[in-house]
Amino acid sequence: MNQNYEKLKQYVDKAAALGAALSLFGWDNETLAPKNSMEKTSKLVGILSSEYFNTIINDEVEQLLKELKVDNTLEEVEKAVVRCFAEDIDSLKTIPPQDFVAYSELTSKASSIWANARVENNFKLFEPVLAEIIEYNKKFAGTQAKDGQKIYDVKLDEYEKSFHITDLDEFFNQLKDTIVPLLKKIKEKEGFIKSDFLFKHYDIEKQKKFNHWITEYMGFDYSRGVLGESEHPFTTNLHREDVRMTTYYFENNLESAIFSSIHECGHALYEQGIDDKYAMTPVGQGASCATHESQSRFFENIIGRSRSFWVPIYDKLVELFPENLSDVTLDDFVKAINRVHADEIRTEADELTYCLHIMVRYEIEKKIFEENYPIDKLPQLWNQLYEEYLGVIPANDSIGILQDVHWSGGMFGYFPSYALGNAFSAQIYNQMKKDINVNKLLEEGNIKEIVQYLNTHVHQYGRSKTAKQILFDVTGEEFNPKYYIEYLTEKYSTLYEL
Amino acid sequence: MNQNYEKLKQYVDKAAALGAALSLFGWDNETLAPKNSMEKTSKLVGILSSEYFNTIINDEVEQLLKELKVDNTLEEVEKAVVRCFAEDIDSLKTIPPQDFVAYSELTSKASSIWANARVENNFKLFEPVLAEIIEYNKKFAGTQAKDGQKIYDVKLDEYEKSFHITDLDEFFNQLKDTIVPLLKKIKEKEGFIKSDFLFKHYDIEKQKKFNHWITEYMGFDYSRGVLGESEHPFTTNLHREDVRMTTYYFENNLESAIFSSIHECGHALYEQGIDDKYAMTPVGQGASCATHESQSRFFENIIGRSRSFWVPIYDKLVELFPENLSDVTLDDFVKAINRVHADEIRTEADELTYCLHIMVRYEIEKKIFEENYPIDKLPQLWNQLYEEYLGVIPANDSIGILQDVHWSGGMFGYFPSYALGNAFSAQIYNQMKKDINVNKLLEEGNIKEIVQYLNTHVHQYGRSKTAKQILFDVTGEEFNPKYYIEYLTEKYSTLYEL
Repeated sequence: MNQNYEKLKQYVDKAAALGAALSLFGWDNETLAPKNSMEKTSKLVGILSSEYFNTIINDEVEQLLKELKVDNTLEEVEKAVVRCFAEDIDSLKTIPPQDFVAYSELTSKASSIWANARVENNFKLFEPVLAEIIEYNKKFAGTQAKDGQKIYDVKLDEYEKSFHITDLDEFFNQLKDTIVPLLKKIKEKEGFIKSDFLFKHYDIEKQKKFNHWITEYMGFDYSRGVLGESEHPFTTNLHREDVRMTTYYFENNLESAIFSSIHECGHALYEQGIDDKYAMTPVGQGASCATHESQSRFFENIIGRSRSFWVPIYDKLVELFPENLSDVTLDDFVKAINRVHADEIRTEADELTYCLHIMVRYEIEKKIFEENYPIDKLPQLWNQLYEEYLGVIPANDSIGILQDVHWSGGMFGYFPSYALGNAFSAQIYNQMKKDINVNKLLEEGNIKEIVQYLNTHVHQYGRSKTAKQILFDVTGEEFNPKYYIEYLTEKYSTLYEL
Repeated sequence: MNQNYEKLKQYVDKAAALGAALSLFGWDNETLAPKNSMEKTSKLVGILSSEYFNTIINDEVEQLLKELKVDNTLEEVEKAVVRCFAEDIDSLKTIPPQDFVAYSELTSKASSIWANARVENNFKLFEPVLAEIIEYNKKFAGTQAKDGQKIYDVKLDEYEKSFHITDLDEFFNQLKDTIVPLLKKIKEKEGFIKSDFLFKHYDIEKQKKFNHWITEYMGFDYSRGVLGESEHPFTTNLHREDVRMTTYYFENNLESAIFSSIHECGHALYEQGIDDKYAMTPVGQGASCATHESQSRFFENIIGRSRSFWVPIYDKLVELFPENLSDVTLDDFVKAINRVHADEIRTEADELTYCLHIMVRYEIEKKIFEENYPIDKLPQLWNQLYEEYLGVIPANDSIGILQDVHWSGGMFGYFPSYALGNAFSAQIYNQMKKDINVNKLLEEGNIKEIVQYLNTHVHQYGRSKTAKQILFDVTGEEFNPKYYIEYLTEKYSTLYEL
């Protein structure tokens, strides 16, 4: 083995070990840790985090990477490790060392100020700290911007490399032109689809059984993973043989846990499917946020809300809950889980309106960074855009501009990756349908063939390919939002008989 | 703050963070981790362990400790931290650096060889590796022995400072003289106590509810801890605000989970009761193995198997399981949970015979280290001692000499601390009865006063006092096994009407 690489590998291994420890603490905190443990645990986690930071950011690693980046003797996996490790370091370095402490303290403080402002339903409480965070982010991005690069493009690059304002403007303009009018027509047909049976009493132990079963049915390997419970469902992993997802059960809601589980299972199948040769290195993870989201959304919506998916398994659900479902037909069930309900809250959005929520945030972030939009006018702008795109004005700021945690942590430029993920999934689906008979496989209960297709074309590569490259290699073309828009238009016009 | 101490504190903090991470991985491995995760996880844990090792064993720490040990300006907590940190380092150093890798590989290999030998019921498979481990331990202990110190005394010191062969010989001789003949008489009254109702069908969900309730009743603070499940019950912690215990539920055994929970709760109450000023330092843990065991055994046996304990709560158990217990009186129940059943397996032993199991191991270890007893003759010796002390000859080596994991990990000298813990608990109980009305408090449902007594006299000090010192400060005398022997003799003579 290359001597420089061998030295670097020591750091990569230590970072993997500390990273896994931090993931385990994160998982534990959301699923099990006793409520009064946090103060002390967060001190310990802080020490491990700074140890992680020092492991990857130091002079020896910098020197090694400098030499290894131009070293032609490296093997394929080694090259990928060098590239991804360097990217991780760059992304940790977006905050200049001299601002690191002040900014960390600010965002840490901001998260509780935001939480309080949301409870108090008072944007004014959050406004000053939000303004400060925005100033810092403008400053940081300004320092990094190369050759007249736009500030917001720098922020976008942090989360989804090479998807910029020009791409997103085109994407969202198409959405605006098609989905907004479509939604207007659908809203006129309120009550067209019945869904009350989804909100009867559903025994939680039985729900657990079904959610475990359905994720296993999808191909989640329980010898290499866990399904837990947490208030906000998420997926994490210690490495590819230990992938952990959570869901949350409501006693009066059948669909919430199921579609959370299916969504998280999409993430988890991605992690379990990454080639073992990348395991426990920075290459052994999803290619990007949007690529990860493309997998979770694909299973949640395109597959999980399709009629074909439920054909072989709906009876199983009826058997578990005959008291609620025995006179609900498969078609009525599928309609109900696809009903459109344009509400104010992003995390509860249906498939059709989800991207409109993101569009609101994208436009606001762009105005903040590119037009220096006044912070005190943001709530008004928020409500105006919600009315325009979703036809709904949030009753108050708690369920309006204060609903998401992201901005309090300085995560500007993150939201668009959710929307891109949806669009990626439709573009991949368009190609997949040409290669395999998706509906037939689903109706035969053979969903694992579909997972296999994604393993082959997406999952196995981990981060060794970029998101753009994966998309191009699977579909033979660059990112193209038209597939997503066509998919939504066709599906929802048919569903609502428009 | 003292400058040297401040520097040392950095290492102490980092060791606490890595230690907590290792504890969390340990907990997770026993309670939740998917079965195929171990290979990769153990690599990551290995990296964190060696990071822990390097954090506490290095030249700067050595130099700092040298100066701090003679620094008179330190405050009380700082002094205790320095002493305990130095002790931890010494105990990690019992293996000389040049043998470390070879010995670690040997014990790691030995554990699976032992497991296989146990399954195959073939001591010969384990014998060579056991012999090698013993040779290493003789060598290590020989290097450390000071001024003609006996080799086995060095090993005993590793687990329970200052309890040596002379102390243990006296202790076990007294046991031999009193408990062995007492057991003989009890065995003649086989069938005197009925206990079949304990082994009917007990719904596990209901058992869980009761075990959660009873540990909370004992004073376990669930805002600072967790009760989980694992095959082998244990207690661990990340720090004093996050103490975790486990139990294991059998569908056909009521007492197993309850007494495991009560036992682990004894350990957990100790951890939760240590003064906050020692938290996240090497002082913030139990004073010694035996002191810890004194707390768990005290609650499991002296309290948990007493009639007074069950007076206010037995009805609750009957209410949960009326089908099995409604015609079992409190007295019959208490008799059943105290019945003597001299079997071959230590971990299933009753209160009376437990120490006899330890006595067998003590005598064998002494012969190994002090008389160079031939390894191939150990199974024979084991069976002979079981017959002599417990009146039972193990049917085979799997449930004989191969039953415990300890020796495969090189843990010689550890077993006696279990027996010492029992004896400590009786000595403390003897004093406690003079200070508070234990039975009255129990009968009034006021067990928390008893926990409070232990908090005040034992728990709060953590490791700032030695085991000997705690025992002396609580009871006003040195270790004295007579209280334990008197307690057992009186309790079991009465129970069996001898």
